[in-house]
Amino acid sequence: MADKAQIQEAIKVQGEVVRKLKSEKASKEQIDEEVSKLLQLKAQIGGDDGKHQFVLKTAKGTRDYNPKQMAIREKVFNTILGCFKRHGAETIDTPVFELKETLTGKYGEDSKLIYDLKDQGGELLSLRYDLTVPFARYLAMNKITNIKRYHIAKVYRRDNPAMTRGRYREFYQCDFDIAGQYDAMIPDAECLKIVYEILSELDIGDFRIKVNDRRILDGMFAVCGVPDDKFRTICSTVDKLDKMPWEEVRKEMVSEKGLSEEAADQIGEYVSLQGGMELAERLLQDQKMSQSKQACAGLTDIKLLFSYLQLFQVTDKVVFDLSLARGLDYYTGIIYEGVLTQAGIAAEAQNGSGAEESVSVGSVAGGGRYDGLVGMFDPKGRKVPCVGVSIGIERIFSIMEQKAEASAQRVRTTEVQVMVVSAQKNLLEERLKLLTELWNAGIKAEVIYKKNPKLLSQLQYCEDSGIPLVAILGEQELKDGVVKLRAVATREEADISRADLIAEIKRRTSEA
Amino acid sequence: MADKAQIQEAIKVQGEVVRKLKSEKASKEQIDEEVSKLLQLKAQIGGDDGKHQFVLKTAKGTRDYNPKQMAIREKVFNTILGCFKRHGAETIDTPVFELKETLTGKYGEDSKLIYDLKDQGGELLSLRYDLTVPFARYLAMNKITNIKRYHIAKVYRRDNPAMTRGRYREFYQCDFDIAGQYDAMIPDAECLKIVYEILSELDIGDFRIKVNDRRILDGMFAVCGVPDDKFRTICSTVDKLDKMPWEEVRKEMVSEKGLSEEAADQIGEYVSLQGGMELAERLLQDQKMSQSKQACAGLTDIKLLFSYLQLFQVTDKVVFDLSLARGLDYYTGIIYEGVLTQAGIAAEAQNGSGAEESVSVGSVAGGGRYDGLVGMFDPKGRKVPCVGVSIGIERIFSIMEQKAEASAQRVRTTEVQVMVVSAQKNLLEERLKLLTELWNAGIKAEVIYKKNPKLLSQLQYCEDSGIPLVAILGEQELKDGVVKLRAVATREEADISRADLIAEIKRRTSEA
Repeated sequence: MADKAQIQEAIKVQGEVVRKLKSEKASKEQIDEEVSKLLQLKAQIGGDDGKHQFVLKTAKGTRDYNPKQMAIREKVFNTILGCFKRHGAETIDTPVFELKETLTGKYGEDSKLIYDLKDQGGELLSLRYDLTVPFARYLAMNKITNIKRYHIAKVYRRDNPAMTRGRYREFYQCDFDIAGQYDAMIPDAECLKIVYEILSELDIGDFRIKVNDRRILDGMFAVCGVPDDKFRTICSTVDKLDKMPWEEVRKEMVSEKGLSEEAADQIGEYVSLQGGMELAERLLQDQKMSQSKQACAGLTDIKLLFSYLQLFQVTDKVVFDLSLARGLDYYTGIIYEGVLTQAGIAAEAQNGSGAEESVSVGSVAGGGRYDGLVGMFDPKGRKVPCVGVSIGIERIFSIMEQKAEASAQRVRTTEVQVMVVSAQKNLLEERLKLLTELWNAGIKAEVIYKKNPKLLSQLQYCEDSGIPLVAILGEQELKDGVVKLRAVATREEADISRADLIAEIKRRTSEA
Repeated sequence: MADKAQIQEAIKVQGEVVRKLKSEKASKEQIDEEVSKLLQLKAQIGGDDGKHQFVLKTAKGTRDYNPKQMAIREKVFNTILGCFKRHGAETIDTPVFELKETLTGKYGEDSKLIYDLKDQGGELLSLRYDLTVPFARYLAMNKITNIKRYHIAKVYRRDNPAMTRGRYREFYQCDFDIAGQYDAMIPDAECLKIVYEILSELDIGDFRIKVNDRRILDGMFAVCGVPDDKFRTICSTVDKLDKMPWEEVRKEMVSEKGLSEEAADQIGEYVSLQGGMELAERLLQDQKMSQSKQACAGLTDIKLLFSYLQLFQVTDKVVFDLSLARGLDYYTGIIYEGVLTQAGIAAEAQNGSGAEESVSVGSVAGGGRYDGLVGMFDPKGRKVPCVGVSIGIERIFSIMEQKAEASAQRVRTTEVQVMVVSAQKNLLEERLKLLTELWNAGIKAEVIYKKNPKLLSQLQYCEDSGIPLVAILGEQELKDGVVKLRAVATREEADISRADLIAEIKRRTSEA
């Protein structure tokens, strides 16, 4: 533990850091982060008044979900889960952290974004960066060669958060993967069908699914004269085409990465191409492209893929797009990305100028084939071919939340069917007795936890939280052996005998 | 980064550590941990053959869940979730890590078990240790004074794992809490009702719910002559009574903690008491106990609690037990623990001698009142009274898994209703077409991802994975515009026209 003098020195230094940033007009995010550090230091020795001061916030780039947000989240999850189950997937779970070693060498330049745990004696651990690498580790460890599984869980990236755009440091991924040696493009086509179904069902605006193949990219680089050792880095630059215009991408290739202007221009011609099966056919005839065996293998698979996509009735949204590159190192074949083509426009307009804040028309799903990853974990290097897709739901949440806020519809956060209320004083015991009857019969029910709550405030609570029924107990009802059942929406009331009450509540709430 | 020579030196040192432990016959767990570190070091410079060697394991104290385990887990969750919803709770979610500061000073001696994240620049973070402290932080941060919420999520403790006993370093907690200023003991009684309902419904053997009150403990310590500054540490010792006999507990109090023999013996008399409402009444008349205002307040509340528990029809399992102490610092009133009184006996017998491995008849739920915790986070110290319960489901999973293994019943890991198979070759396209029809109608369906799978292997797959129906396509069926629908259990087959197929599948699968 640092002593008080050391902390006070650290506070002094940190205070200067903050002042300097402010004078330099650094970004709000940067300043906030340093201020937060300062407050944490101050908290260690107690605040000005000697009282312990807490920094009341969640960690940078993370957020809580309140009950309304949870209700929306549950709706999105149910759609995705329903689709994964319709396609016959099992589910597994893996720990939130892995041996650091397990994640090493899988993410290329993005490895710097991995959260490490402190060395507290014992193993060196890191928080998972995605669900794909833990899945591959799981397959190798358990010698599994065939599985179709989904996994919905949080992953962690020390990225620059842009929370208004749905970019967090802690976020959910919903993954569906098919592992096994199968005939070409059948599982791959199913993954695209899944993206299609989920994005259609969520009803968050029009979308496209871009498809490409790592082998086509590599073949293209080869025939355009990119040196072998520059494939990966040029691929990273191509990947920026969804955020930067071609001119800037070209400049990065030539000025920063030392590619020849001719090669860059040839790449520029190819990556502007978009189409369907016919584009794959045309490129198979392309004088230059057809020189690459790799590219031809990829193009042949794209053709086959489109033939299955036709059977799956999804070709209206799928585009073969040679500019799609995707960042991760582990892809070996088909790659794809689901992109919303409308959503976010509203949010962009709202935010006005804000370049930082503007919602880019975003990628909400991505995936591809990774035939080599499991082999990296297997002691004998045995390969298990895999293809999968990951739905990035934070952005979808953001859109759904905006929709919910914009609409007048109330989001219920509980499923309570009936509230037990009393009309007079001193009926707590009677309320608790009836409540017990209802609970024991499986009915979702509540009381106000007060001895003598006012009737009006009990009814108001029902209105506010959307509870459909009220069971009212009063002296008269107790004497008559009945309960006054009130429908909150219509305010209609009827006396129901205690013996019939449960059946009546079940009848009324199953109608809805 | 350390260079190769440094790592090689570290490997040498670590190798000696392992040899030493082995020669000293250290515990298997300790040796495994040091071997794992050694392998990780070796992996950093490549193994003997120069090839990169992976340590294929999950982090210490954690585990993967395979699809079968997930199916059991889902069943347990659904029971718990159903109960929480029946009691009208909303749900929230908080991040897996908090500012380190947020967790500081909440867990007493157990704080050493908190996982810290590495300082990678930015805030100092720790993995959550429970869901209660993040809940209190959430309430203070959002100035919420009333909420009934559940939260099901993983928490992290660097404890000594004993995985055969269901003790992990990453484990789920299922928490239900009621925050708000209400009349005494009504929410507290509901928490006990919830433990009762869940443990009954899970059907994992007989159980008891022990109840006590921190104020009774403190009052008892005071009247027995324990000095004020020893309350907490003596309380920790009392907490060990479920694992140690009284003689040992007494010894720890006297020899280690310096309590007088007289005080220890007086405590010994009280903590052997168990009963119900009548015990609380007797103690209110007890000459010594009645001298403590605190104890009297606690005893009066216990009486009131039992009167509500009678209305909730749960008194047959609830015991007022003066030996119940519970470790956590933040409890201020009623505390309770749900304990299985039978389970684990089977496992104990299996493991034979193993003192380390024997399954103690275990606590599977615990909670209490913590009226001061939210105030610790509020800048103005405003209090929000809270009471809650946490279901510890890892131990319940272990029991359910053992039960599932012991029974012959097969656990299904998917919900697939129908498998589309072909009787002859070259019918892949027809299979995919039919599959699309089924998916689009919301039916859970699969095919084998092969062009020409054998009929028998397709049928075998259905038997193995418990799929109830098979839709068989052959030349003849296609010509006739029908599908042969086969019930896997009875092997009965019937030709169904394509137009009626979906309705027929829905009819047959809704019967089950």
